[in-house]
Amino acid sequence: MRPCERLSVCVLAVLCVAAGGAHGGKVLVWYTEGSHWINLQPMLESLVDKGHEVTVLLPNTSMYMKASDTSRYRFLHFNTSVTKESLEELMEMFLRFTIYEAADMSYPQLIAAILDKVGMNVKLQLRYLDGVLKSESVMAKLREGRYDVLLADPIYVGSEMVAELLDVPLVFSLRFTTGHTFERLCGQLPAPPSYVPGPLVKLTDRMTFKQRLANFLFYASQDLLAKWFWSSADEYYTEYRGKPTSMCELVGKVDLWLIRTYWDFDFPRPLLPNFKFVGGIHCRPAEALPQDMEEFVQSSGEDGIVVFSLGSSIKNVTMERANVIASALAQVLWRYIGEKPETLGENTRLYDWIPQNDLLGHPKTKAFITHGGTNGIYEAIYHGVPMLGIPMFADQPDNMVRVEARGAARSLHFNAMQSQELLDALQDVINQPSYKESVMKLSRIQHDRPLSPRDEAVFWVEYTMRNKGAKHLRVQAHNLTWYQYHSLDVMLLLLSVALLLALLLVKSCGFCVRRCCGRSRNMKSKSKSKAE
Amino acid sequence: MRPCERLSVCVLAVLCVAAGGAHGGKVLVWYTEGSHWINLQPMLESLVDKGHEVTVLLPNTSMYMKASDTSRYRFLHFNTSVTKESLEELMEMFLRFTIYEAADMSYPQLIAAILDKVGMNVKLQLRYLDGVLKSESVMAKLREGRYDVLLADPIYVGSEMVAELLDVPLVFSLRFTTGHTFERLCGQLPAPPSYVPGPLVKLTDRMTFKQRLANFLFYASQDLLAKWFWSSADEYYTEYRGKPTSMCELVGKVDLWLIRTYWDFDFPRPLLPNFKFVGGIHCRPAEALPQDMEEFVQSSGEDGIVVFSLGSSIKNVTMERANVIASALAQVLWRYIGEKPETLGENTRLYDWIPQNDLLGHPKTKAFITHGGTNGIYEAIYHGVPMLGIPMFADQPDNMVRVEARGAARSLHFNAMQSQELLDALQDVINQPSYKESVMKLSRIQHDRPLSPRDEAVFWVEYTMRNKGAKHLRVQAHNLTWYQYHSLDVMLLLLSVALLLALLLVKSCGFCVRRCCGRSRNMKSKSKSKAE
Repeated sequence: MRPCERLSVCVLAVLCVAAGGAHGGKVLVWYTEGSHWINLQPMLESLVDKGHEVTVLLPNTSMYMKASDTSRYRFLHFNTSVTKESLEELMEMFLRFTIYEAADMSYPQLIAAILDKVGMNVKLQLRYLDGVLKSESVMAKLREGRYDVLLADPIYVGSEMVAELLDVPLVFSLRFTTGHTFERLCGQLPAPPSYVPGPLVKLTDRMTFKQRLANFLFYASQDLLAKWFWSSADEYYTEYRGKPTSMCELVGKVDLWLIRTYWDFDFPRPLLPNFKFVGGIHCRPAEALPQDMEEFVQSSGEDGIVVFSLGSSIKNVTMERANVIASALAQVLWRYIGEKPETLGENTRLYDWIPQNDLLGHPKTKAFITHGGTNGIYEAIYHGVPMLGIPMFADQPDNMVRVEARGAARSLHFNAMQSQELLDALQDVINQPSYKESVMKLSRIQHDRPLSPRDEAVFWVEYTMRNKGAKHLRVQAHNLTWYQYHSLDVMLLLLSVALLLALLLVKSCGFCVRRCCGRSRNMKSKSKSKAE
Repeated sequence: MRPCERLSVCVLAVLCVAAGGAHGGKVLVWYTEGSHWINLQPMLESLVDKGHEVTVLLPNTSMYMKASDTSRYRFLHFNTSVTKESLEELMEMFLRFTIYEAADMSYPQLIAAILDKVGMNVKLQLRYLDGVLKSESVMAKLREGRYDVLLADPIYVGSEMVAELLDVPLVFSLRFTTGHTFERLCGQLPAPPSYVPGPLVKLTDRMTFKQRLANFLFYASQDLLAKWFWSSADEYYTEYRGKPTSMCELVGKVDLWLIRTYWDFDFPRPLLPNFKFVGGIHCRPAEALPQDMEEFVQSSGEDGIVVFSLGSSIKNVTMERANVIASALAQVLWRYIGEKPETLGENTRLYDWIPQNDLLGHPKTKAFITHGGTNGIYEAIYHGVPMLGIPMFADQPDNMVRVEARGAARSLHFNAMQSQELLDALQDVINQPSYKESVMKLSRIQHDRPLSPRDEAVFWVEYTMRNKGAKHLRVQAHNLTWYQYHSLDVMLLLLSVALLLALLLVKSCGFCVRRCCGRSRNMKSKSKSKAE
């Protein structure tokens, strides 16, 4: 045998071993929306690469999901009564509320508005769910599919119910749920309010007393809000199944939780064996830019470029805000791209879409002006690019707090910032070496892992298929009530016993004192009478 | 280029990448004892394989550690005033106490005896530590060594102090510390007493109220015991450094905790980003047996063999107990090895040492009679061999509770068991398919991991060297007091505010009532006078 043949045999053997775990499972993917769909895709691509059949539940109304997205997945279509116009209107209203309206509201107005928005969201979600659960043909197809695992981003409820009905293991892939309520209350993930900041509260893991108080109250309020929100789903499920059904209990049966953060971005916190932190799942080495873009980038010379994106959800920035940004950018580019003063048109190119990952991975990129979405931040961390955040809504301000706390970014208020402020901040981020050093440290943490986040996520999805679930990784806390979990009943008993003992002690002391005093009085009176 | 050459180039490239993380670090290993030393070695071997220089601190008095063990490590010798005789005597006394004496003691006697033993252990540990900290030449060599990491099994205290003095990252490798006190109180690992059974309490993660009460009290008592134990070390450290020094605070600075359990053996529980669970680190595929042993094993025919070991610590089983075991074994082997009745001498072979891993991995092995040490249990899980436990001391009864709870073993009381009982239990374990099925399930969990436990442990040791520590994986809980951690101050404030509000409400209601009543009385009296 020639050595070449032997080598081929070895390589083949390795390939066989590597493919050993795969043997074509059937993955069902729950419908989702927006950046959540973008986030799921790298994992789905890898699953297809490894020989699994991926079937995606696809509603007729979606802003981001399209059957034409790729021919690599199968699609299971279903109809919802939600129209595209109403969906877009809702999204628009939500953005308007969080970016512009919320800031001017009084606290009671804000609470009322949030309850109103949450209520609308619940109704929307259940209308989507109608399209699956109440369609006999869709349910029949789901049953016939004999899937090995259901993969869901819990932004839309319902996957936990379908997993239960089909008796299929369930894997969640998420960044977080509101108030971490699914993770904490249903998944039993411990989150001490003293050092685990709630999502969206814009706190770090180092809190003052006042901040700890705020965080504590935030969790408490989220618990109440969640109970109210869940009651609609509970009613829906109970009516559907004809027996009392709790959504949270079903969510508690999730086999594996893939959380899209890691300790470069999020603060270290307690976890559980069935919670895997796979942040940066979509990051990949940069590829070559389109030629015209590469030429533009190269024209920056030694000064390098700044990548600027406010994400995919933002389309309607007011002209006043756009001018504030544009004038600052013109100056920035004037300072960092060319020596000769140039007009905005020449220094700043506008694109409908940019290959963000490839641009951030370009050696000429000096900084990233971002709205603070998790995806963009992770790409910047992956490629080691310091950030200037202009966060606007949802988790964006909270995300920026995280990278700022690590010294890898600065952050500005979208509504309040002025051109000079933006310019100064950008100069800081580019010129002060601490920002680059800090983001490079985060980048090392991101890259230095036993498995890449994507490989890790795919491993655990395959694991769940191979082992028909991962129930052995679930803690027994799921079978305890909240007061049992916190040992409150045990402490109550111990306290009662202690009180009882204290009472007995006091009583018996009193008794002794009375006896002694009584006797000494008797003795005294006796000796007195004797003396008399 | 011929394809062969191209392939070679590819393979070389892969090798270079794989070796990229190694670049010869310097690992210092803290002295340890008994099975703890056996446990450390697989990791050390792998570290040497990967090109690191491993230096082991070696006391002149040790039962297990010998400089001749291997020429692959360097040794840094130090002298302790502890003699081998006193060490063996202490071990002997400890074994006698836990196996025979403790069972007949009243509760107060037991507490006194435990305090006495713990006190002796502390004194012993500090005498060892004298040999390092108070020897100028040893400390000078340690400083000159410029180590990249200190690796320690915290069975002997002191590594945390030397890591602090040398400013070297510290990695702990351990199964558990008494009462999980190091992990919980210093490492901030959450352990809700409601479902995380304390070590040695022989409880599972499913507890009745009474068991939860016992577990709660166990943790509380261990906390008190630890505080008392640690005070000696604190005094020692404070005196040595000439400034107040807390051992627990130093232990809290540990960069990484490698815990030698996993979710096949231990119950799922909360963890932290810097706690890695690498149980079964020493397991490896079986190698061929020595020829005479292989012949003996093959002579068992279809019936197969039973492997029997009470571990390395037990040498003095009483003759009565030995007879109970021997007579049962004779019968078992009679049933399972040959058809024709044979004598004990023919059916049972006695060895000073057996290649336990290779025997357990032999296809003819039907069961494993074990004292319940973690190492043996992990080998049985790795190779999928059901177990019959005869646990005696330390963590052995607790270990057996874990495998019994998973249905992979039965367990007997060493002092109480009779031959027939042993025989029946062994027959059960071999003949009832549930034991084999359960242990095979555990075996699948053990093998189905993204990295083997040894690779994972080595990865994290190398990680700590590469990143000069792993402080970014530590939770902020380290900087909180216990009442801050549990938000007790926040809750106290909220309770006070609630009480104050309630008081204000009652007072103002009273005021209103008085005003109203007063006014109505006035009105009445006015109208009365008017009427008059």
